[in-house]
Amino acid sequence: MITRDQLAELDADDALAPMRGRFHLPEGVIYLDGNSLGPMPKATAARVAEVVRQEWGEGLIRSWNDAGWMDMPFRIGGKIARLVGAPEGNVIVADSTSVNLFKLLGAALAARPGRRVILSERGNFPTDLYMAEGLAALLDRGHTLRQVEAADIASAIDDDTAVVMLTHVNYHTGAMFDMAAITEAAHAKGALMLWDLAHSAGAVPVDLAGCGADMAVGCGYKFLNGGPGAPAFLYVAEHLLPTIRFPLTGWLGHAAPFAFEGSYRPAPGIAGGFVGSPAVISMSALEVGIDIALDAPIAGIRAKSIRQTALFAELVEQECPGHGLVLASPREAARRGSQVCFAHSEAYPIMQALIARGVIGDFRAPDILRFGITPLYLRYADLWDAVAILRDVLTSGEWRQERFQTRRKVT
Amino acid sequence: MITRDQLAELDADDALAPMRGRFHLPEGVIYLDGNSLGPMPKATAARVAEVVRQEWGEGLIRSWNDAGWMDMPFRIGGKIARLVGAPEGNVIVADSTSVNLFKLLGAALAARPGRRVILSERGNFPTDLYMAEGLAALLDRGHTLRQVEAADIASAIDDDTAVVMLTHVNYHTGAMFDMAAITEAAHAKGALMLWDLAHSAGAVPVDLAGCGADMAVGCGYKFLNGGPGAPAFLYVAEHLLPTIRFPLTGWLGHAAPFAFEGSYRPAPGIAGGFVGSPAVISMSALEVGIDIALDAPIAGIRAKSIRQTALFAELVEQECPGHGLVLASPREAARRGSQVCFAHSEAYPIMQALIARGVIGDFRAPDILRFGITPLYLRYADLWDAVAILRDVLTSGEWRQERFQTRRKVT
Repeated sequence: MITRDQLAELDADDALAPMRGRFHLPEGVIYLDGNSLGPMPKATAARVAEVVRQEWGEGLIRSWNDAGWMDMPFRIGGKIARLVGAPEGNVIVADSTSVNLFKLLGAALAARPGRRVILSERGNFPTDLYMAEGLAALLDRGHTLRQVEAADIASAIDDDTAVVMLTHVNYHTGAMFDMAAITEAAHAKGALMLWDLAHSAGAVPVDLAGCGADMAVGCGYKFLNGGPGAPAFLYVAEHLLPTIRFPLTGWLGHAAPFAFEGSYRPAPGIAGGFVGSPAVISMSALEVGIDIALDAPIAGIRAKSIRQTALFAELVEQECPGHGLVLASPREAARRGSQVCFAHSEAYPIMQALIARGVIGDFRAPDILRFGITPLYLRYADLWDAVAILRDVLTSGEWRQERFQTRRKVT
Repeated sequence: MITRDQLAELDADDALAPMRGRFHLPEGVIYLDGNSLGPMPKATAARVAEVVRQEWGEGLIRSWNDAGWMDMPFRIGGKIARLVGAPEGNVIVADSTSVNLFKLLGAALAARPGRRVILSERGNFPTDLYMAEGLAALLDRGHTLRQVEAADIASAIDDDTAVVMLTHVNYHTGAMFDMAAITEAAHAKGALMLWDLAHSAGAVPVDLAGCGADMAVGCGYKFLNGGPGAPAFLYVAEHLLPTIRFPLTGWLGHAAPFAFEGSYRPAPGIAGGFVGSPAVISMSALEVGIDIALDAPIAGIRAKSIRQTALFAELVEQECPGHGLVLASPREAARRGSQVCFAHSEAYPIMQALIARGVIGDFRAPDILRFGITPLYLRYADLWDAVAILRDVLTSGEWRQERFQTRRKVT
């Protein structure tokens, strides 16, 4: 039996405990949704205010040079690179994850002209699948998006596979791929490997260069705590940069944007991945979140995450038996990202009732209760308190109330 | 001879004069670059702080529903619609201008399958041309971007023209197309008409629906004063929406984003133009700028703009004769947007010297001094003061100083 006292003792010994103080966490909330939208770092409001009032308000157009706005996507990209095992010059911040997927998938298909298949996981995050579908339809040259079960990915890669596109940690279940093994399998068949790090960056160790990954994208507003709709990032391995052809050819990806030439000439290297003007204000918030992530050793994050996810799953099973909750995340730590999911036919109203009680997780259609575990600010005792409320919600049946049944726009 | 007193009298009679008080304008600066980056509205800092501290900090993930984040791109799009003569449901805020151009050009080519030509102006803003070039190269089906002189556009439209893509007001010269006439010429040949309103929205009257324009994009950070890298907008005419096929198919453009289906089904209407998560913080700043624009009658803006641009051109010619400045903007008001440009072989160092003296305009390669005229906050007397400084810079020759010669990253 796990007790709250045991968990409180773990908190007392937790080397990461001081990190919690760098986030604003509302009273009465246990936040288990940092994998959907990370909470606000306390330093963010001041930094954003500085960008708005000082850099924009006083500096005006001059801040593109004087405040380094033009370099921000490189500077912040370089910081993200350190979080995902990439050389600093191979990551930039730009656009959304979806748009970056399009850029890289387009580049991947161009780099493997004889091959027709984009291979992905059935159950990958929809935007990854949709962007690939849309690109294939747009090109209209016989490309297809092939979706197979996670376990079948490696064996499904063949000589017609142009690119394997996978989300490292599945948004729905938390299941995590072996990045090195799958990348190697892709390369063995001559395919490129594109990783979506949306649920990985800042949460689990990633070694893009070490694994030989060719391309990657990732999200700024989950474990990087960059704020709602924070810009995303993209990575391209050095060996691809000399010949890469990005399909979105905007002026900021031009070799000389301010020469205003009449025809496109790609900027050398990763800079060709830029399209339009970066969202400076949103990007300034992102940098604060990333700076915090850089202050926490990822090995410590991962160790705490493994312990917390395991404890959370055990606690739910210990405290809430007989309510029909079925663990939907891998039990094996090495195969699990930083979240714990339970399936339940009434997952939607149960999650709404939990949220009403201050335990904020996510519902994911059709039947998943998703709990994000974020070691930077989550205490061990919070796990106990969250599960105690889950138990109350289930035993009292309060989730059956009318008000929890109605689907909201964002679920 | 125009005198400063005459200009001060115009200020005293200016119905728009109170609008200036809604902007933060740094001491010692005459800002003639609002067509590159508009200044900060005073209300913006507080609104952005509210979104960061309250909506994100306290509301966390709940704010997608509770603070209306999910509806923001529609709500703000609806406001922009009122500025550009569009129905409220036909404009959304999303991504960058460049990315939106790609979406609409892709949709336009899909809607005109037998036609191969994207027709544009030689000298259009580079990103418009580059995105079109990139799309044609990506499709690899014989599409070409054809660039002709502005005066030749109407006659260059033919049966092979899929879409005419023009920037209403040219970024380089300020020359303005007759939107109704060109749109009619495009339709007469069965082509679609796509307008880039980057230098129009908030500056000159635009009547997209009245002109029958099919598509439009525009920029949030110029005359709409939305902040550095503010999100852009796109418009699609009602008649195209039932069959439009956007080429970027992200999860937020799906008919049911939170159903997480395995295959893409476009959202009906303009919502299919969404791709990834919107940049909420940047978008909140944009809304403040747009709200101010909605408080100023566009007819009054235009009347003052015409008067100020004419006066500025006259003043430069009156005060700075013999220095080689050649007016590069149309003299005829009806053909001029809200800027005045002069060509000069030493435009770069002259502009740097002006900026050092607090008169902030833009250099545009290779030889253009560009002065944006923004009636919301520019006084008539400012015109005099700016030209007096220009005269000093030219007569003193201070622009010849070494420090003004070195090209900066953003020029």
